[in-house]
Amino acid sequence: MASVRDIVVSAAINLLSALTFLLAFAFLRLQPINDRVYFPKWYQKGTRSSPTASGGFLKNKFVNLNFKTYLKFWNWMPAALRMPEAELIDHAGLDSAVYVRIYLLGLKIFVPITILAFAVLVPVNWTGSTLDDIKDLTYNDIDKLSISNVPSGSLRLVAHVVMAYVVTLWTCYVLYKEYQIVTKKRLQFLASENRRPDQFTVLVRNVPSENDEAVSENVEHFFSVNHPDHYLTHQVVYNANRLARMVDRKKILQNWLTYFETKFERNPKKRPRTKTGFWGIWGKSVDAIDYYSAQIKKINEYEAEEREKLMNDPEAIIPAAFVSFKSRWGAAVCAQTQQSSDQSLWLTEWAPEPRDVYWNNLATPFVELNVKRLLASLAMFCLTFFFMIPIAFVQSLASLDGITKVLPFLEPLMEQEAVMSIVQGFLPGIALKIFLTLLPAIIASMSKIEGHTSLSSLDRRSAGKYHFFLLVNVFFGSIITGAAFEQLHKFLNQAPSEIPRTVGVAIPMKATFFITYIMVDGWAGIAAEILRLVPLITYHIKNTFLVKTEYDREQAMDPGTVDFPTSEPQIQLYFLLGLVYSVVTPFILPFIIVFFAFSYLVFRHQIINVYDQKYESGAAFWPDVHRRVIIGLIISQLLLLGLLSTKSALQSTPLLLVLPVLTIAFDRFCKGRFESAFVKYPLQEAMKKDTEERATDPNLNLKAYLQDAYVHPVFKDIDMNRPAALDDEENSPLVETSSRKSSEESGSPGIIVDTVIDEIPSYYV
Amino acid sequence: MASVRDIVVSAAINLLSALTFLLAFAFLRLQPINDRVYFPKWYQKGTRSSPTASGGFLKNKFVNLNFKTYLKFWNWMPAALRMPEAELIDHAGLDSAVYVRIYLLGLKIFVPITILAFAVLVPVNWTGSTLDDIKDLTYNDIDKLSISNVPSGSLRLVAHVVMAYVVTLWTCYVLYKEYQIVTKKRLQFLASENRRPDQFTVLVRNVPSENDEAVSENVEHFFSVNHPDHYLTHQVVYNANRLARMVDRKKILQNWLTYFETKFERNPKKRPRTKTGFWGIWGKSVDAIDYYSAQIKKINEYEAEEREKLMNDPEAIIPAAFVSFKSRWGAAVCAQTQQSSDQSLWLTEWAPEPRDVYWNNLATPFVELNVKRLLASLAMFCLTFFFMIPIAFVQSLASLDGITKVLPFLEPLMEQEAVMSIVQGFLPGIALKIFLTLLPAIIASMSKIEGHTSLSSLDRRSAGKYHFFLLVNVFFGSIITGAAFEQLHKFLNQAPSEIPRTVGVAIPMKATFFITYIMVDGWAGIAAEILRLVPLITYHIKNTFLVKTEYDREQAMDPGTVDFPTSEPQIQLYFLLGLVYSVVTPFILPFIIVFFAFSYLVFRHQIINVYDQKYESGAAFWPDVHRRVIIGLIISQLLLLGLLSTKSALQSTPLLLVLPVLTIAFDRFCKGRFESAFVKYPLQEAMKKDTEERATDPNLNLKAYLQDAYVHPVFKDIDMNRPAALDDEENSPLVETSSRKSSEESGSPGIIVDTVIDEIPSYYV
Repeated sequence: MASVRDIVVSAAINLLSALTFLLAFAFLRLQPINDRVYFPKWYQKGTRSSPTASGGFLKNKFVNLNFKTYLKFWNWMPAALRMPEAELIDHAGLDSAVYVRIYLLGLKIFVPITILAFAVLVPVNWTGSTLDDIKDLTYNDIDKLSISNVPSGSLRLVAHVVMAYVVTLWTCYVLYKEYQIVTKKRLQFLASENRRPDQFTVLVRNVPSENDEAVSENVEHFFSVNHPDHYLTHQVVYNANRLARMVDRKKILQNWLTYFETKFERNPKKRPRTKTGFWGIWGKSVDAIDYYSAQIKKINEYEAEEREKLMNDPEAIIPAAFVSFKSRWGAAVCAQTQQSSDQSLWLTEWAPEPRDVYWNNLATPFVELNVKRLLASLAMFCLTFFFMIPIAFVQSLASLDGITKVLPFLEPLMEQEAVMSIVQGFLPGIALKIFLTLLPAIIASMSKIEGHTSLSSLDRRSAGKYHFFLLVNVFFGSIITGAAFEQLHKFLNQAPSEIPRTVGVAIPMKATFFITYIMVDGWAGIAAEILRLVPLITYHIKNTFLVKTEYDREQAMDPGTVDFPTSEPQIQLYFLLGLVYSVVTPFILPFIIVFFAFSYLVFRHQIINVYDQKYESGAAFWPDVHRRVIIGLIISQLLLLGLLSTKSALQSTPLLLVLPVLTIAFDRFCKGRFESAFVKYPLQEAMKKDTEERATDPNLNLKAYLQDAYVHPVFKDIDMNRPAALDDEENSPLVETSSRKSSEESGSPGIIVDTVIDEIPSYYV
Repeated sequence: MASVRDIVVSAAINLLSALTFLLAFAFLRLQPINDRVYFPKWYQKGTRSSPTASGGFLKNKFVNLNFKTYLKFWNWMPAALRMPEAELIDHAGLDSAVYVRIYLLGLKIFVPITILAFAVLVPVNWTGSTLDDIKDLTYNDIDKLSISNVPSGSLRLVAHVVMAYVVTLWTCYVLYKEYQIVTKKRLQFLASENRRPDQFTVLVRNVPSENDEAVSENVEHFFSVNHPDHYLTHQVVYNANRLARMVDRKKILQNWLTYFETKFERNPKKRPRTKTGFWGIWGKSVDAIDYYSAQIKKINEYEAEEREKLMNDPEAIIPAAFVSFKSRWGAAVCAQTQQSSDQSLWLTEWAPEPRDVYWNNLATPFVELNVKRLLASLAMFCLTFFFMIPIAFVQSLASLDGITKVLPFLEPLMEQEAVMSIVQGFLPGIALKIFLTLLPAIIASMSKIEGHTSLSSLDRRSAGKYHFFLLVNVFFGSIITGAAFEQLHKFLNQAPSEIPRTVGVAIPMKATFFITYIMVDGWAGIAAEILRLVPLITYHIKNTFLVKTEYDREQAMDPGTVDFPTSEPQIQLYFLLGLVYSVVTPFILPFIIVFFAFSYLVFRHQIINVYDQKYESGAAFWPDVHRRVIIGLIISQLLLLGLLSTKSALQSTPLLLVLPVLTIAFDRFCKGRFESAFVKYPLQEAMKKDTEERATDPNLNLKAYLQDAYVHPVFKDIDMNRPAALDDEENSPLVETSSRKSSEESGSPGIIVDTVIDEIPSYYV
């Protein structure tokens, strides 16, 4: 077991690596060439078009030689905190602003608890002096600060029981306050929002098929009968997945064509040639411009054919539609009520905002949806508990014997010592690492199977699954040390009252492990997050080798988003650790506080300068965050119950049993009090907005406004003639883009293939 | 353990007692004097006003001397089945009609299963011949028909696994079909219903208190702003509990006054006197007519005062209101949507029909409601698991030593042998019996605490609680034989995978016990139900001693209702037994089928001739019934799993584990498919009804129709001048009543104090 010195060393190493990351970040971000990696948000916003804009005094476009700026490299920290929350919501959206509040919630919960624990529990534990009597090496100084140092049946345990109450009450109080604040912010946000198509629109699924009526007429008919005063218009949904693939393909071809055309323009003597194979690397050599022109012409024909087919084939219309209403009130009513007496038909729900729609899932029929959900939850259960089995199998294959058995011709190679040590030391770990890297993607595809209709709900569901996985495999896995299916077996064959005891007893012994975990995963991990090593390298690789057009550079600049489905569950792990150890080994708490504070700083900086959200759900994830903290609280209470029951403090059991009951009651109370603000849209608010709008804009042509709001992105491309990734509200960045391009072009003629273009839209005509 | 002969004897005894009850019933129901006990429904309906109406040839009004009728005394059975279901719904309401369908559901599930089990499983078990080899007395012939007779690890167990699948699939299929039918019937019923106030009305609770506005204005203002096109009117709710008590008291006084006045009229020479004490038995002797007149005058004054206070005191108005809309569509919208951004305010729900409102609970604030629900569920948990503790305490007090200790002066009495044996043999049992008799009332009062606003939801909640109690204390209690808190202790200290094994192994051994239980509780109990012994005796006692006025006789004729909160959970116990034993000991199934068939017959007869429902919820209880059968199914699957795991048939475990997963998925599917038809009112249906009504009755004054629909019953009394128990739609029975009275009066001058009255309403002026 690690001693205090080991922890100090580990802390030093991790602090050092974190510091190194931070220094690297401070240095790299000041280099103009990295400007699009560290400030993409401002480019997206259109307020920044080239690195010059940030300073104005930079001589060199690639390396910052102004050493004065280096002296101020810590400035990003206060800068990250300076932006007030209202402005932050305006700048980055409510989702992001509330996301960083999760870290703030951690600070609010744990700072007072830490102070109290160090003032009360640490002295109580320290003077407990049980471990002084045991003269072996199974304990260390940290254990002397933990509950392990308190003798069994001691009156001192009263302090721990009282502390458990304080922790529960304080956590619930902070959670309640925070839920209240977030709810208020959400309602304010929804109220202050400008007119958006989704405020007037409802997604209708499972439109019944009637032989004599097309989907469109059926929808029109149904809603004009059942919502006569409010129905305005509707848009049917085409199954355009094939067309979307064609459009993507055409974009690539066009990029290539433009690239070669520019090349030819610059050097008119030599017509560029390309090979017909993959990425132009092999295959028959042909004239590039002719080849790509022909390809594009061909794909244009296919595309036109497919479009025609889609428009005329009634089979291509999905039995779902976006139905718009004359007022927010009408839409709110339709979204919240049941339409037909057959519950599997005419299902209505709030339409997600247009960019949040997950188009592939709109067509799933009711029964299929149920079957898919069942399968997805079974798959998740198996994934969580049995993922080690295939990995162990792969690992056994990846051993020396395994490889020589499957591929006998490699045997001579395997006998070399260097190869041997690599295979034995490296390969087994890689199988697990690959799995863990793929895990978020696996989980995301499971969520997709479940048939959610918006990206935001997909993300929320994935986060729930990942949280379960982490809880079982990281938290319980680390404590019980065994694969999850062994845990499962143990739990099934043990009395329910035994489980908290088994786990609870192991808790104090794992404190040092978790402290190290927090430093590696929390501190250094977050510092790596701000350095953005992967996007940095990717950007430069793309910039050097792949960027052929300005549009490509737009794409190469990958601002990324808050990766909610993986990062939120990870935060929850820290909440869980903090709550579990607050009474047992308070020494862990400062490490958690450092994590929360540092993360708050880093993520606030990132959402201001880097991330660009794909959608805006209005903090719809908060009920999940709240519930998971509650789950952590209940786990901590049960484990303390188990731990104390081994400390001859059985009389505390009824006292401690009250806590989970109270916590569950609190959760249900909060659910009743706040949750529907995240699910429903109160009529009062809708009516207020409607009335306001009627006063300010009495001549609004809402029908025209909504006409094409919910058109599948591939159809939008025709009309808009620009990439689907850009939203139609953001017209200004496009204008800026061209000026930015020309300025960059003049400055950097050599490094990247910087093609002169008139305007992005013209590419895709 | 009971042998087959014991069971035959027990069956004979129970059949005989059931037959005796039936014969007694057949005899008693033909006596005109009992007519109001066995046919009250027809009196209530107004189609029967005196026993003569049924035959027309009866000479004697009290005893039936026409022996021809006795020959046809089994006629009630086919008669009960003859009424088609549509007519039954019309006659007794959908609640009752669907209630008897529960028995039909039992038949549908178990008749095919029984046939299959006897064709397949019984031969398989019988020829298993394990028990033949064991030459001791722990088994009997019934065990030879059960799974116990199949050797461990035998291939024959495949038959049981297949049977488990068949039972699950068949039960789910029947449940699905039945849910579909009931949903359809409910929607038809709601659609075919005449105009009712609750179709247009929404109950609004937690109206916020604003200092400058009264509740009434606040409601008016809120709904005319937020539902401008649909809001019609509203009715505030007064806290009239005190007034209601006064009105009740006045009614009793007036009955006495009328009684004495009539007495004086008949015998004008002697003014009747009464004593001022309890029931006129002791106290100062006074002139009865003067005394009661004075009393009534006094209470009238109090009442007027209280009414005035209620009308003028804004404190007397509860922050809740019944809000009515211009159309069903408007009400459906308001009931299903959220009104305010603060979820604890302006809570809307469908208004129960006026007679279904539980007035006392309308005022509960949001936070208080949450606390009360928590307390109620904790109390229910303690009641279920620890009720034996206080009873054991009372039993110990009720022992000889206990009594002599508390009441030492009784010691000489206690020493007599007869007294001793009574105390020892009788008293301890009585404590338990009293508790079990009071249990439904205790459970009902717990449900009241939970703050439900309608009698029907109170009943549904009570049924849920009682089901839990029966499950723990009757089913598991009988199998594990131990008080519930001992079970709880055992369950907590045993591995979850052990529990099905422990219980599962005990299952086959308890078959004979449950067969006896079915015969006593099911067969004889149902026969006792049709005899209506308690109402019969009560009616005759009341008739002889208490009935002073015609209104008293109306009250004495207690038709009763289907006692849903206790009888539905009892049926569920039979479902559970059938499902558990269908694979283990199919021999029990015919007994269950007899129970279901006989109950179906009896209850169909009762709802046609006897019961008068207090409210009509439109079969809103069906989702509960469905869910509880599913719970029974899952319990049966888990117990079979445990049982087979002891039979060295471990390879069947994964096969059997699939069943509960499938069953839960089926339940969720059904929930999604049907449940909202029981909770919400589809807009399509509402719109259809509205359109129809607009066509048929274009000049309807809806406001006038709804004006007084939701007035507290005590206020209705003033206007209507008749008892609250009678509903306002039922005007015809009142007219009939007077003719019935006069005809009876002329025929039966002696036995009851039959006072001549002009009309009931005049009593209460």
